Amino acid sequence: MKFNQRVRSVQKKNNSLLCIGLDPDMSKIPVKLKRSRDPLYEFCKSIIYATCDLVCAYKLNLAFFEVQGSKGWDAMQKLRRLIPESVLCIGDGKRGDIGNTAEMYATGLLDDLGFDAVTVNPYMGSDSVLPFLEDSSKGAFVLTLTSNEGARDFQYLASGRKPLYQHVISRVLQWNRKGNCGLVVGATRPVDLRMVRRMAPELPILIPGIGAQGGDLKASVRNGCTKKSDLALINVGRTILYASNKPDFQEAARASARHMRDSMNEFRSTSSG
Amino acid sequence: MKFNQRVRSVQKKNNSLLCIGLDPDMSKIPVKLKRSRDPLYEFCKSIIYATCDLVCAYKLNLAFFEVQGSKGWDAMQKLRRLIPESVLCIGDGKRGDIGNTAEMYATGLLDDLGFDAVTVNPYMGSDSVLPFLEDSSKGAFVLTLTSNEGARDFQYLASGRKPLYQHVISRVLQWNRKGNCGLVVGATRPVDLRMVRRMAPELPILIPGIGAQGGDLKASVRNGCTKKSDLALINVGRTILYASNKPDFQEAARASARHMRDSMNEFRSTSSG
Repeated sequence: MKFNQRVRSVQKKNNSLLCIGLDPDMSKIPVKLKRSRDPLYEFCKSIIYATCDLVCAYKLNLAFFEVQGSKGWDAMQKLRRLIPESVLCIGDGKRGDIGNTAEMYATGLLDDLGFDAVTVNPYMGSDSVLPFLEDSSKGAFVLTLTSNEGARDFQYLASGRKPLYQHVISRVLQWNRKGNCGLVVGATRPVDLRMVRRMAPELPILIPGIGAQGGDLKASVRNGCTKKSDLALINVGRTILYASNKPDFQEAARASARHMRDSMNEFRSTSSG
Repeated sequence: MKFNQRVRSVQKKNNSLLCIGLDPDMSKIPVKLKRSRDPLYEFCKSIIYATCDLVCAYKLNLAFFEVQGSKGWDAMQKLRRLIPESVLCIGDGKRGDIGNTAEMYATGLLDDLGFDAVTVNPYMGSDSVLPFLEDSSKGAFVLTLTSNEGARDFQYLASGRKPLYQHVISRVLQWNRKGNCGLVVGATRPVDLRMVRRMAPELPILIPGIGAQGGDLKASVRNGCTKKSDLALINVGRTILYASNKPDFQEAARASARHMRDSMNEFRSTSSG
């Protein structure tokens, strides 16, 4: 099945637009887990077990695993295997390099670690992205308009009346021959998100920036979804992961995830109605 | 010592502009090493031992280690410790992400692995780059104009009469308050390299793309160096690493590296004269 069909299918089956961002920060995880042999793994495992029926995807932030060295890399591999097949698993590393190097990244992340999709950086152009798109069942979400302040530095620069991020979208539409491209658009940019959705009605959009970064959930759902189908994967990280740092952190994370999922579905249905 | 001063100092002491790119491809390394317990490590170690008096830097391509999972990560860590202090060690990962994630990457690569510098991707703007610049003795080479074909997709897009890559340079000059920014400019773009050097006379420029990618050595040296000092780090990878895949591969790599270094010095001296 093509990647964009997989997104549709999982979102429908799980009745969820929620993607949980696993950015496990050692300084914020519950004290009792800090004493375990592999706190990073134990924490993420607990979050996954408590939430996996409520989400369409998990997004693993590679930086938070890399910083633990080879141990973090092993934890990531174990976690990948733990995530049920009914849920997508995105490797968020924002890689991008010349062809032969991009092939190595693609092999490592998509084949060996077995992520269903990755995030990639478009700055180096076609040959830095295409190696991630060889298998039509696996996807690449291309950075388009990011949620951070620095996005203003280059992404809005106008060239021929179109900002850079719209040039990126035009290219991604060309790269999408196998139906496995997606975009990353920050929840902090609701008006632009609507424009992106208009330009790319059939592409899955990964939307980070809800919660700690100040993005608006309602606007993200309304502007990110299409009439025909959802295709917006709305990422929530810290709000769910650190809902509590006490022994009840699993229950708190589950409650927060359920609330997020339900709110998204509510905004979705009133928007279609 | 500030990073750009460290570059000057190492280049002078070692009398070399040569940076060897360690992109260890399992399919190309000598047969006898493939049978060892840790081929990646053994191969890179052999190359380093055979060349470390001839270079100003090594550049480790993270993709080629990541693809080996946690074992590759351990190999990278061991190799980093092996490289003498008289030589710079660059972690080529082209990372770039929002602030708190960029901090994690910076901690992992600069503090824990102990790279002297990293390569970073500018697409996400200031807050994705600044975390790599906190320690003035460590550097960040920002992707500017890359050596691959895909560079044409976005890097030359004109905005306000300036191509995107020149907007990147303007920002990097602002980010350079601590004297630790550098640029990445492909050897395949000699005319543009001259323009970059004019815009940024004091920034170290990392120049990949010699050899397998078709970049011209003479033009890279002449256009990449300044009159006052060198500050061009010219990366050569495959030509040196795979000079031979027979038991004489160390001697062959050394001969190739020596030839490269000497050619660079020759072009440099005739250019100043």
